[in-house]
Amino acid sequence: MFKNITIAGAGTLGSQIAFQTALCDFNVRIWNPHPDRAKRRLAALRPFYKKDMGLTDAQFDKAMENIHSISNDWEIPFKDCDYLIECVPESLNTKADFYHNVCPHLPEKTVIASNSSTMVPSQLVNYVDRPDKFLHMHFANHIWTNNTAEIVGTEKTKPEVIKEVIEFAKAIKMLPVHLQKEQHGYIMNALSVPFLNAALELWANGVADPITIDKDWMNSTGCPFGPFMSMDMVGIRTVYAIFSQQARTPEELKVAKTMKDMIDAGHYGVEAGQGFYQYPNPAFKRADFLTSIEAR
Amino acid sequence: MFKNITIAGAGTLGSQIAFQTALCDFNVRIWNPHPDRAKRRLAALRPFYKKDMGLTDAQFDKAMENIHSISNDWEIPFKDCDYLIECVPESLNTKADFYHNVCPHLPEKTVIASNSSTMVPSQLVNYVDRPDKFLHMHFANHIWTNNTAEIVGTEKTKPEVIKEVIEFAKAIKMLPVHLQKEQHGYIMNALSVPFLNAALELWANGVADPITIDKDWMNSTGCPFGPFMSMDMVGIRTVYAIFSQQARTPEELKVAKTMKDMIDAGHYGVEAGQGFYQYPNPAFKRADFLTSIEAR
Repeated sequence: MFKNITIAGAGTLGSQIAFQTALCDFNVRIWNPHPDRAKRRLAALRPFYKKDMGLTDAQFDKAMENIHSISNDWEIPFKDCDYLIECVPESLNTKADFYHNVCPHLPEKTVIASNSSTMVPSQLVNYVDRPDKFLHMHFANHIWTNNTAEIVGTEKTKPEVIKEVIEFAKAIKMLPVHLQKEQHGYIMNALSVPFLNAALELWANGVADPITIDKDWMNSTGCPFGPFMSMDMVGIRTVYAIFSQQARTPEELKVAKTMKDMIDAGHYGVEAGQGFYQYPNPAFKRADFLTSIEAR
Repeated sequence: MFKNITIAGAGTLGSQIAFQTALCDFNVRIWNPHPDRAKRRLAALRPFYKKDMGLTDAQFDKAMENIHSISNDWEIPFKDCDYLIECVPESLNTKADFYHNVCPHLPEKTVIASNSSTMVPSQLVNYVDRPDKFLHMHFANHIWTNNTAEIVGTEKTKPEVIKEVIEFAKAIKMLPVHLQKEQHGYIMNALSVPFLNAALELWANGVADPITIDKDWMNSTGCPFGPFMSMDMVGIRTVYAIFSQQARTPEELKVAKTMKDMIDAGHYGVEAGQGFYQYPNPAFKRADFLTSIEAR
C-alpha cells in the first residue's frame, strides 16, 4: 500500500485531495509553484470539513500535520514518493511540461495519476517515463461528500497498479469506479453533459423556464436536484464554456448570451452566491418548493 | 371548476387517472371498448394505493363509488362531461377515430385533453371540433407518487382553459407543469431520453457495466437512482424501442441485441421481476450497495 503521497498542483481539487489524503493518515507532500496560495487553499477547507463532516478544529489541525511539506522545490516533494497525483492546470502543454520536469526526480517505484477532467490517459501517457505505472484518477469537486474516484488506465497500465490505486481510493474513503476503457468526461460527465444540454435546449426553445424544468424533473423522478441546480453547483462558467461551443440556432445563441450575461454580472453559481438560484438559502431548500408556487 | 370527468381508455394510465380523480371526489365516468378489462385494471390498483398511499380497503371502496359508470357506450360517459381525458392507444389513427366518434356526443362545455406521451397537441388538434378547448395533459406511470401533470396547449387553446386544467391538476394532487410551447417528450422525457441514451452508450462502448454506471451516478450526485434503475422502471421494452431505432455502430447494435435478449427472456424490468436488477429486493435497496462491492 502507498504511504507517501504527493499532490502536484494545489488548486481547487488538488488541495481537497491533499487534505482528504492527510486526514486518512497518509504522508502528504504538496508541490505548487506558489506555496502560499496552496496554504490558503488548504485553510479554506476548514469550514467545509467542520460543517459537512463534523470535524473539530483539533481534528483538522491534526490532519494538517500529515502534510509534511508545501513547496515549489523539485526534490523534496518527489524523492520518496509512492504515488503522485497530478492536478496542474488543464492544459496539455502545462501538463506535458510538468511531466517532463518531474519524471527525472521520481524514484522508479512512483505511480503517477492525472486528475485531468478534460483529457484522457492516452493523451498524457506519452509524456511520462513509465507508461505501465500511469493512469487517471478523477475526483469531483467537494471530494469529502462527492466521494467518487473514477479510475482508468491505458493498455499499458499494469493491472497491479490499477489494483493498488483502487485500494488507495478506498483508504481515502472514495468509491473507486474503474472504467474498462478511457472515455471523455469519464462516466459522471458523460452522463451529465447530455442531461444538462437537454435542459438548456428546453429553456432555449422556450418550453419552460429553468425553475419549472427543475421542478418537473425533481417531482417526476424523486431526484433531490434538477438540472439548473446542478449547473449552479458545477458553475455556470463551465456550463457556458461547453454549451457555447455547440450553440448554433438563434435560440441556443440567446441562451448562451443569457448565461454570458449572468457570468458578467457575477452570477455564476453557488460559489458566487447567485446563479439560477440565490444562495445560501435557495428557493429549492424550502419544504414547499415543489408545491407552493405553481410551476409555470 | 370541473365536476364531471370522463376518462376515455382505461389502460395503464387511464385507469390510474380515473381512480386518482375519483379518490379526489370528482364524478368519474370511464369509456372503454372492453369494460371488463377496465374493471380489472382498476381493481389492480388497490394494493398500490394501500402500500404507497396508506389507503384502507374502505377508503379504496369509497373512492370507487365515485366512478359512476364504466361502459363502451357513446352516450352515457359523455353527455354531461366537463372534462374529457383521452387515454386511448398511442396511434394517430386510433386517436383520430376516437375524436371523430366522440365529438358529436360531447356538450359544448367539454374541455378535451389528450394524455398522449408520443404526440404533440398540434398533431391532434385538427381532429377535434373545439381547438380552443383542446390541450395535452400528460401523466407519468404511478401517478399517485410520480404526481406530475405536464400541461400544454396549442396557439388556439384559450388561456382560461389552461387555467382550469391547472386548477384541476392541483385538485387531483398533481404538480401542474405548464409548458409554454409543445415539445416532444414534454420536459421529463426530453431530459431523460438523452440521459438514458448516454448511459447506454457508455455500456455499449465497454466503458463500464450498468451497475457500475449506476453507482457512479448515484455516488457522485446523491441522486437516489441511476440510469439503469430508471430503465428497469420505465421498462426495457420502451427503452429498447427508442434506442434500437438509432443504433448504428456495432457496439450500439450489440447493446440493442442484449436488451432484445433480455426482453425475449422476459427480463424487461421491474414489472417482470427482473431487468438490470432482480425484484422485489434489488441490490440497490441494500444499505451497502454503494460501498460493499467494489465498483468494477
